[in-house]
Amino acid sequence: MVLLKGDERLDYLLAEELRIIQSPSVFAFSLDAVLLARFAYLPAKKGSIVDLCSGNGVVPLLMSAKTKVPIIGVEIQERLYDMAFRSIEYNGLEDRISMVHGDLKEAPAQLGYEKHSVVTCNPPYFVTPSDKELNMNEHLAIARHEIYCTLEDCIRSSSELLKQGGKAAFVHRPGRLLDLVTLMRKYRLEPKRLRFVYPKTGKEANTVLIEGMKDGAPDLKILPPLFVYDEQGEYTAEVREMLYGEEQ
Amino acid sequence: MVLLKGDERLDYLLAEELRIIQSPSVFAFSLDAVLLARFAYLPAKKGSIVDLCSGNGVVPLLMSAKTKVPIIGVEIQERLYDMAFRSIEYNGLEDRISMVHGDLKEAPAQLGYEKHSVVTCNPPYFVTPSDKELNMNEHLAIARHEIYCTLEDCIRSSSELLKQGGKAAFVHRPGRLLDLVTLMRKYRLEPKRLRFVYPKTGKEANTVLIEGMKDGAPDLKILPPLFVYDEQGEYTAEVREMLYGEEQ
Repeated sequence: MVLLKGDERLDYLLAEELRIIQSPSVFAFSLDAVLLARFAYLPAKKGSIVDLCSGNGVVPLLMSAKTKVPIIGVEIQERLYDMAFRSIEYNGLEDRISMVHGDLKEAPAQLGYEKHSVVTCNPPYFVTPSDKELNMNEHLAIARHEIYCTLEDCIRSSSELLKQGGKAAFVHRPGRLLDLVTLMRKYRLEPKRLRFVYPKTGKEANTVLIEGMKDGAPDLKILPPLFVYDEQGEYTAEVREMLYGEEQ
Repeated sequence: MVLLKGDERLDYLLAEELRIIQSPSVFAFSLDAVLLARFAYLPAKKGSIVDLCSGNGVVPLLMSAKTKVPIIGVEIQERLYDMAFRSIEYNGLEDRISMVHGDLKEAPAQLGYEKHSVVTCNPPYFVTPSDKELNMNEHLAIARHEIYCTLEDCIRSSSELLKQGGKAAFVHRPGRLLDLVTLMRKYRLEPKRLRFVYPKTGKEANTVLIEGMKDGAPDLKILPPLFVYDEQGEYTAEVREMLYGEEQ
């Protein structure tokens, strides 16, 4: 049993393994969240994972299919936190995923400094809301724009949460790549793995996945490119596997 | 007629359009030089191009097939400068390509500050020669290691040579990407285009192509990935076209 509010739907995640509450007017997860959950290094048994800017909890839910370590999601919007909380309950994952309703800038004080092994974050992508965007739905505006947190806030908090050798994974737009790497180095998160996501062959990348290691030595790897759609406009096998858990 | 010295060969460039003098014991151009020559923005008719770390002149020779503006190559090793000079003469390109035998750190004083529209540079890739590498042939060691110039020297000189809005293109290893972007920003070359080269599908990138604009506004594009070999171990159509001028 699950209580759906307003225009919420109970959507499938990973074929029929998981369900997630979403709403077109409040929050629906993007492919980027799926890419982040599958890009991040996940410890098999030891440690703990914090997901910042957690939204409706899509990243913790997806990660829970790949690791047994505890996952904590942090979300500032009560409406989204509530959706995440109910999805976790619906899936019976309360013992493995917990949600915190709060500001990620306070997450290290709440969840412990230098204590966690992995942080993931799909931050708001846009710096300044334009007038048009300010007129948008407030929930969507907060999720998409740096209203409550800047990229620097996300990276600082991630670093503060991580113990030495811990890993932080972010997803963003290519236009912010240089800000990402500069801020990551400023906060002792040495970029180690970088993957570019292309909508299809022959197009520019529209998404960047990056992972840094706290106090890691410089040694950046550029992973194979990820293509989202094939020539027929269908998801590629790699993306289908991420979305639906199908074998490649 | 061309005078070949020692174990030099007269190799083809771009099918039979151009010839280049190389030598296995002194210097033979790499695929990276070809990638750089084809990646760099080239003005059609106006301006001038400087190629630093020019080696046997492969980048100027290749660029001369795509632009009519004057190209100046700078090479510190007299032996390589001499090879480049003779190749240019052999191809009858003396009126379009000139070679300077000198140190790139002095190139702006020699060739003019803030005067040129494009700079290309395929710098030495390795920071410190290991003992093993120090035992190598001196010509190859200088071309591959930061013996006479560091990456910072290359980027500083490139910036000094360029007028506002001018473009500098570099090729390097992914492990130096963060140094590249940090140094480029330090010397007012805003990274604008980034392309990763993968040996084949499913492998990590082994080469980075990056272009910055002097005093440009931040707006980085990640170009489609370039694959060198296909599944059969043959050059891909895109690389064949770069190497031999074949139509794709």
